[in-house]
Amino acid sequence: MAGSTIGNLFRVTTFGESHGEGLGVVVDGAPAGVELDEEYIQEVLDRRKPGNNPFATKRNEADKVHILSGVFEGVTTGTPIGMVIYNEDQHSKDYSGIMNVMRPGHADYGYKVKYGIRDYRGGGRASGRETASRVAAGAVAKKILGCLGVTVSAYTKSIGNIEIDYSRFDLAFAYEDPTVMPDREAAMAAGEFLEKCIKDSDSAGGVVECIVKGVPAGVGEPVFGKLDAELSRALMSIGAVKAVEIGDGVAVTGRYGSENNDSFFTRGDSVYKASNHAGGILGGISDGTDIIVRAHFKPTPSISKEQETINEKGENVRIKIKGRHDPIVVPRAVVVSESMVAITVLDAIMINAVSKIDKLKLTLE
Amino acid sequence: MAGSTIGNLFRVTTFGESHGEGLGVVVDGAPAGVELDEEYIQEVLDRRKPGNNPFATKRNEADKVHILSGVFEGVTTGTPIGMVIYNEDQHSKDYSGIMNVMRPGHADYGYKVKYGIRDYRGGGRASGRETASRVAAGAVAKKILGCLGVTVSAYTKSIGNIEIDYSRFDLAFAYEDPTVMPDREAAMAAGEFLEKCIKDSDSAGGVVECIVKGVPAGVGEPVFGKLDAELSRALMSIGAVKAVEIGDGVAVTGRYGSENNDSFFTRGDSVYKASNHAGGILGGISDGTDIIVRAHFKPTPSISKEQETINEKGENVRIKIKGRHDPIVVPRAVVVSESMVAITVLDAIMINAVSKIDKLKLTLE
Amino acid sequence: MAGSTIGNLFRVTTFGESHGEGLGVVVDGAPAGVELDEEYIQEVLDRRKPGNNPFATKRNEADKVHILSGVFEGVTTGTPIGMVIYNEDQHSKDYSGIMNVMRPGHADYGYKVKYGIRDYRGGGRASGRETASRVAAGAVAKKILGCLGVTVSAYTKSIGNIEIDYSRFDLAFAYEDPTVMPDREAAMAAGEFLEKCIKDSDSAGGVVECIVKGVPAGVGEPVFGKLDAELSRALMSIGAVKAVEIGDGVAVTGRYGSENNDSFFTRGDSVYKASNHAGGILGGISDGTDIIVRAHFKPTPSISKEQETINEKGENVRIKIKGRHDPIVVPRAVVVSESMVAITVLDAIMINAVSKIDKLKLTLE
Amino acid sequence: MAGSTIGNLFRVTTFGESHGEGLGVVVDGAPAGVELDEEYIQEVLDRRKPGNNPFATKRNEADKVHILSGVFEGVTTGTPIGMVIYNEDQHSKDYSGIMNVMRPGHADYGYKVKYGIRDYRGGGRASGRETASRVAAGAVAKKILGCLGVTVSAYTKSIGNIEIDYSRFDLAFAYEDPTVMPDREAAMAAGEFLEKCIKDSDSAGGVVECIVKGVPAGVGEPVFGKLDAELSRALMSIGAVKAVEIGDGVAVTGRYGSENNDSFFTRGDSVYKASNHAGGILGGISDGTDIIVRAHFKPTPSISKEQETINEKGENVRIKIKGRHDPIVVPRAVVVSESMVAITVLDAIMINAVSKIDKLKLTLE
Repeated sequence: MAGSTIGNLFRVTTFGESHGEGLGVVVDGAPAGVELDEEYIQEVLDRRKPGNNPFATKRNEADKVHILSGVFEGVTTGTPIGMVIYNEDQHSKDYSGIMNVMRPGHADYGYKVKYGIRDYRGGGRASGRETASRVAAGAVAKKILGCLGVTVSAYTKSIGNIEIDYSRFDLAFAYEDPTVMPDREAAMAAGEFLEKCIKDSDSAGGVVECIVKGVPAGVGEPVFGKLDAELSRALMSIGAVKAVEIGDGVAVTGRYGSENNDSFFTRGDSVYKASNHAGGILGGISDGTDIIVRAHFKPTPSISKEQETINEKGENVRIKIKGRHDPIVVPRAVVVSESMVAITVLDAIMINAVSKIDKLKLTLE
Repeated sequence: MAGSTIGNLFRVTTFGESHGEGLGVVVDGAPAGVELDEEYIQEVLDRRKPGNNPFATKRNEADKVHILSGVFEGVTTGTPIGMVIYNEDQHSKDYSGIMNVMRPGHADYGYKVKYGIRDYRGGGRASGRETASRVAAGAVAKKILGCLGVTVSAYTKSIGNIEIDYSRFDLAFAYEDPTVMPDREAAMAAGEFLEKCIKDSDSAGGVVECIVKGVPAGVGEPVFGKLDAELSRALMSIGAVKAVEIGDGVAVTGRYGSENNDSFFTRGDSVYKASNHAGGILGGISDGTDIIVRAHFKPTPSISKEQETINEKGENVRIKIKGRHDPIVVPRAVVVSESMVAITVLDAIMINAVSKIDKLKLTLE
Repeated sequence: MAGSTIGNLFRVTTFGESHGEGLGVVVDGAPAGVELDEEYIQEVLDRRKPGNNPFATKRNEADKVHILSGVFEGVTTGTPIGMVIYNEDQHSKDYSGIMNVMRPGHADYGYKVKYGIRDYRGGGRASGRETASRVAAGAVAKKILGCLGVTVSAYTKSIGNIEIDYSRFDLAFAYEDPTVMPDREAAMAAGEFLEKCIKDSDSAGGVVECIVKGVPAGVGEPVFGKLDAELSRALMSIGAVKAVEIGDGVAVTGRYGSENNDSFFTRGDSVYKASNHAGGILGGISDGTDIIVRAHFKPTPSISKEQETINEKGENVRIKIKGRHDPIVVPRAVVVSESMVAITVLDAIMINAVSKIDKLKLTLE
Repeated sequence: MAGSTIGNLFRVTTFGESHGEGLGVVVDGAPAGVELDEEYIQEVLDRRKPGNNPFATKRNEADKVHILSGVFEGVTTGTPIGMVIYNEDQHSKDYSGIMNVMRPGHADYGYKVKYGIRDYRGGGRASGRETASRVAAGAVAKKILGCLGVTVSAYTKSIGNIEIDYSRFDLAFAYEDPTVMPDREAAMAAGEFLEKCIKDSDSAGGVVECIVKGVPAGVGEPVFGKLDAELSRALMSIGAVKAVEIGDGVAVTGRYGSENNDSFFTRGDSVYKASNHAGGILGGISDGTDIIVRAHFKPTPSISKEQETINEKGENVRIKIKGRHDPIVVPRAVVVSESMVAITVLDAIMINAVSKIDKLKLTLE
C-alpha cells in the first residue's frame, strides 16, 4: 500500500531514494495565509546536515530545498506545497561491494523479499537520507504551529549510557554542540565516547526527547486516533527507533497509582497539574500541559567491523561495511523527531477544530 | 475527526460507552471464506472478563456478543461483520459522586474541554470497557491469521517490579493464573503484591508482551506505514499504555552496533538470524523471525485513596473514587494487546499482498 | 478493502444484510452539543418505509432504530453514534427459488466471483435495504447541518418519461404523494404509469434531484476532494444509480461558453449569480448559491417477467423473480439520496473549517 | 483537508500551479517489477499537449517529465515514484488584467473565499494545467494495467451537438485528428464548429467516453467504494466535468426493467451478457464485460466575449478574458479522463486481490 503518506487534514507525502535523482515531499492541507519561504525551510533543514559534525557522515550534500508550489507572494495559498531536494554528492560506487549483501540490522533483506528488487545504493528508500523530506515538511508544520502559539523542541537526551536531564539546561544551546546535548559536560563525555566508537569501527545509540508547549487541552481523537497513539506511530516510523515513551513512559509500570496520578488544581482562572508524569496526554487527549515524548534510537547498523551475514544468493558471507556512515544517528535525528512531532500535533489540532458544534459555527462566520 | 476507526484493508470501527446501551464494532474487509461463529468470539472475549479474577472489577457483565452481519452459514462473506455487546450490570449511580469531578490520571478533563459535554458514567467512552469491542474484532483477526499460519500470543511480563522471562515458560499456561503470568512463582508474588495494593487503596502497573509467529518477511509499508509504526500506534491507543517497545526496545540505546545487529545466516533453504534484538522488524518491514512488542501500562488511575483535584466549576476539591475498579489493568489487557497486534498484523499482511506485480497477477487467476 | 466507510471528519460506516440479524451504522465525528434522539431519526427513517405506498415492496418492516451510543442526556457527545435496526419481517424462503441463480441486473454474479460465497437471501448486502443505515446516518447529518443553517431537500424529478420542474412547486408537499413528486398532476400520471408497470410484471426508473441551501462559498477540497467529486461518489454508491449530474449536467455540453457561464454581481454586501447553470459548484468549490445535483436510477432489476440468465453451475436458465419488490426504487430513494448528499456536504463543511490560518486560530480560543 | 490525494493501495498525490515553478505527482503503491521510463511517460503526456492542435491554447510548454524516484534500472521498485514537470512558457503578465476579477464559470471566487488568497496567474491550482500531473500518474497506472491484461481507451464522443458512436470506428485512429474523434466525417464537422466558436470569441463543450477492457468480474468494494462510485468521483474531479454516466447512464431512466436488464449466458466455460446497458458494473462490482463511462465537459469558461462579473472589491465590472485559451477542453481531456479511469481501476483491482482467504493465501507463497 501507499505507505509514504501521513496525516489527515495536514498530510505529508514523501518520495526519494538516497542515490536517486532527489528527494521530495508534498505538504497538503497547510492552512492558507502563513508566511513561508525557502530560506526558512533551508535553515531548519540545515540542522540535519552532517556539516562539520565530526560524528556524522562525510557525505557532503548541500540539501538545497526548492519550493515548487503552494506559496504565492511569500504566503501559503492552501494548495499543496511541493518541495524537492536534489541529490548531488552521490558516491554510488561505494556500494558496489554490498550490492548483493544483506547487511545485518538493515532493511535490505525485507525490501528484497517484499519487492523482489531493491535499490541497494546507500540503502535506497530505507536510507536515513529520506528524512530530509520529513524535515522540510516539519519546518512547514512548525511555522504554522508558531502562528498558533505552539512550539516543538527536541534535544539529545542520551548517547550510549550518558544521559542528561533537560530541565537543568537551556534547550536553546542544544545546537551549540555537535551532539545536540544542551549540557556541556555531558556533551563532552558523549563526544569522547563517540570518538572511541569510531576508533573501534563501531556505533552507538541514544535517546531524543521532544517537548511541545502551548497545545491547548482537548487535542487527540479517541479511541484509535489518540494523540499519543499518533505520536508513537510518527516517531516509530523513523528508521532506527525501537521504543517510544510518553511522559514518564516505561518508568510508570513500577509505580503505585497514588504516585503516578497527576493532581489537577486551579489558580486564578487557569488549570494546572501538580506533576506531569502523564506527559501532557490523558486518555489520548492533551491536558493543556507540556507534551513530552521520547524516541529510542538503536546504534547505527552500518559499521566497518567485520560481520557475518548472507548475500542475495543465500550464501553465508562476511562483510565490512565501507562508505560514509554516521557512528550515531541521534544528533541528526533530533530535528527529524521534532518534525514528526510537529506534523502530528498540527494535524491533531486541525482535526480538533471541529469537535464541538459551537466551534464549527465559529468557522462559518 | 472520526477517531474510532483503525486499519486500511482490514478495518475496525468501534462504538459504545461504559454505561450506555452497549458496545459494538464493525469489522470491514475480512476476507470471505473463513469459518466464524459467536461461540468462538465469545471464548476470546471471556479472556477479558473480570470473572472470578480477584484483581479485577466486581462489575459482573456477561459480555455476550451478538454477530449481526457478515457471516452466512458459518462463514465470512466479505461484507462487514457487525457485532454488539449490550451493557447489563450498570451501576450508574456509583458515579453520581464523581460526575462533576475531574479525576486525576483520567481523561475527564480532556473530554470536557474537547467536547463541552461528557458522559461521566464509568468514564463513558474512555472506559476500559471500550476494549471489549477491540477484543471482538481481534478475535476475527486472529481467526483469519490462523488460516495463514500466523499466531499472536501475549502474556503479563511484569506487574509492579516483578518481571519474568517468557522464554523459560510455556505461554499456554498463562491463563491458568489470574495474573496471566506463565511463571507460577512470579505469579504468586505478583498476587501478593496486588493484594497489598488493594489493602492500601492503591493500584499497580505492568507490562504486556506479544509474540507473533509465522509472519513472512516483507510485511510493512515504509516509510510511514512501517510495521513497527503501525504496531506502536495500535498499542498506544489502548488506554493506560505509556510506552511501546519493539524487540529489545529501550535497551538498544546503551549498546554498540556490533552487539545489537542480528546476523543473518542460511541453513538449507531457509534464512535465520543468530539473534533477534530487532524483534522481527528491520526498516519497518518484517524479517521473517518472531515479532516481539511490549506495551507498558500505568497503574489504574481509579484509586480509593484520597486525592486532590478540581471539579467542573474549577474548584479545588478532594475525592476518594468509589466504584468497582481493577487494582491493575494488565491481566485483562493481555487479550486486548493481543487483539490490537492481530488487527495490525493482518492489515499489513493484506496490504503486502500486492507489493509485486507477480503477486498481483496471481490473484487475478 | 473495507468499502463500507465514507467520509473523513464526519465518517459513516454501515453494516448489515437484507435477511441477516439487522442493519446498523456508526456515525463517527459528529460534533458534540447537538440535540438528537431516536424519535427524530425514526421520523426520517419512516420516509424510506414502504408503508402503504402502493409502489413499494409489501415487506412490512418496522425499521425501528436503536441508538446504542454517542448520545447522552439528549445531546451528542462527540463519540461515535452506533445505531441498529433489527430485521423482522424476513421471508427468507421466498428466495429459495433464486438461491442458485444469477439475476440479470443484479450484483449476484459479481458477489459470487468476488467472494466465492454470497448471502442470496434478498440480495444480502446488495439489497436496497442496506440504505436504511444510510438514512439513519443522513438524519444525523441533516440535524447538524440544520444547526449551521444548511438544508438538504430532495424530490422525485422524473418517473419513466414523466418529468417535472420543481421550481414551480412547493417541495414541502413532495411527501404527500407516494411518488414523492411535488406536482399533483404529474404525480397522478406517474402513478398510472407505475400501475401499468406492475400489471406488465415490469419496472421503471427515474430521477431524484437534491437541492442544498445555505452552504457558504468555499466548501470543497481540490483537486480530488472537490465537492462535486465527493457528491458524485456518494450518489453513485447508491444501488441502481447510473448517472450523476451537477447543475445543468449533461445539458451543458451542447452550449456555448457565453450561454453557460453564470455572471456574478453584487447588490448591497452580497454576491449573487445571474443564473446557476453550475449548480452552485465551480472548480469543485461551492460558490454560495444553491447546490443542485441529480441521480439517475435504473428500473428495478427484480421483475416477475420471465428472463434468461445463468445459475451458479454456469447453466443457461430462465427465471421469474418472485418476492416483494418495488416496481420503482425512486420514491424511496429520495430520502436516501438526500442522506448521502447531507453526509457529504457536512463532511466538506467540517474540513473547510481549517482552510485559513485565521479560521484555525478562532477555534483555539 | 488534504484534497490532492486519490486512491488507497495505488495512491496519487499531485501538486503545482499553472504559473508556479512546476507541477508534480507522487505515485505511491505501484507494484514492484514493472518496466517504466521517462520516454514512455512522455509519450502519454504528449497526447495532452496543445502541440499544433488548432483548437488548443497557444501556450507552448514542452511538458518534459522528470522521474526523480521509484524506478531503478528501468523497473519500478515499489517505492513512491516522484515526477516533476517544470513550467517554462509562462506569460504571467497576461493575467495582470484579471488579477482582481472573479471570472464567470471559474473557481476564482470560491478560492478567494476559501483561502483568503489566490494565485490568480492562469487560474493557479484550478488551471487545466494541473491535469498534466494526473496524466503522468495515469501513464504509470496504464503501464501496470497492461501487465494485467487490462486496457483503458478513451475518445471524444461529442463536441457541441456533434456526436459519434464509437462502435463503428477504430479507436486507434482517434489521435489522427486534433478533435480526437475517431470518425473522420464527424471530426471535420466538429472542426468547423470549433472554428466558428473561435471566430465568435466563444467556446464549446463535449463528451469523453472511456472503455476499459479486460477487468475481471469482482472488482469494486461495496457499499461506498463501489467501482462506479469511485469512477464517478475520479472523473468529476476533473475541472469542467458536470456529469458522469456509467453504461447507458441517463438513458436508463426512461426504460422498463425488462429492456434494461442484461441477460447472462454461458458459452463453453465463459460467461457473457447479451447486452451491456450496465456498462460492465452491477451493484458496484465489475461483471467481467467492458466498463463504459462518460464524462460531460462544459464549454471552456474563458472566453474573449465581454462578460459581466465582479472584482475582488465586490464591484460590478465587465471583462474580456485575454490570454491563450482552448475553445474546447475535450480533445485534451481525453487522455486526462483515461488517466483518471486507469488510476481508479488499478486501485480497485489491487484492493480486490484480498477479497477471499484463498486468494490471500496465494500471495503468501
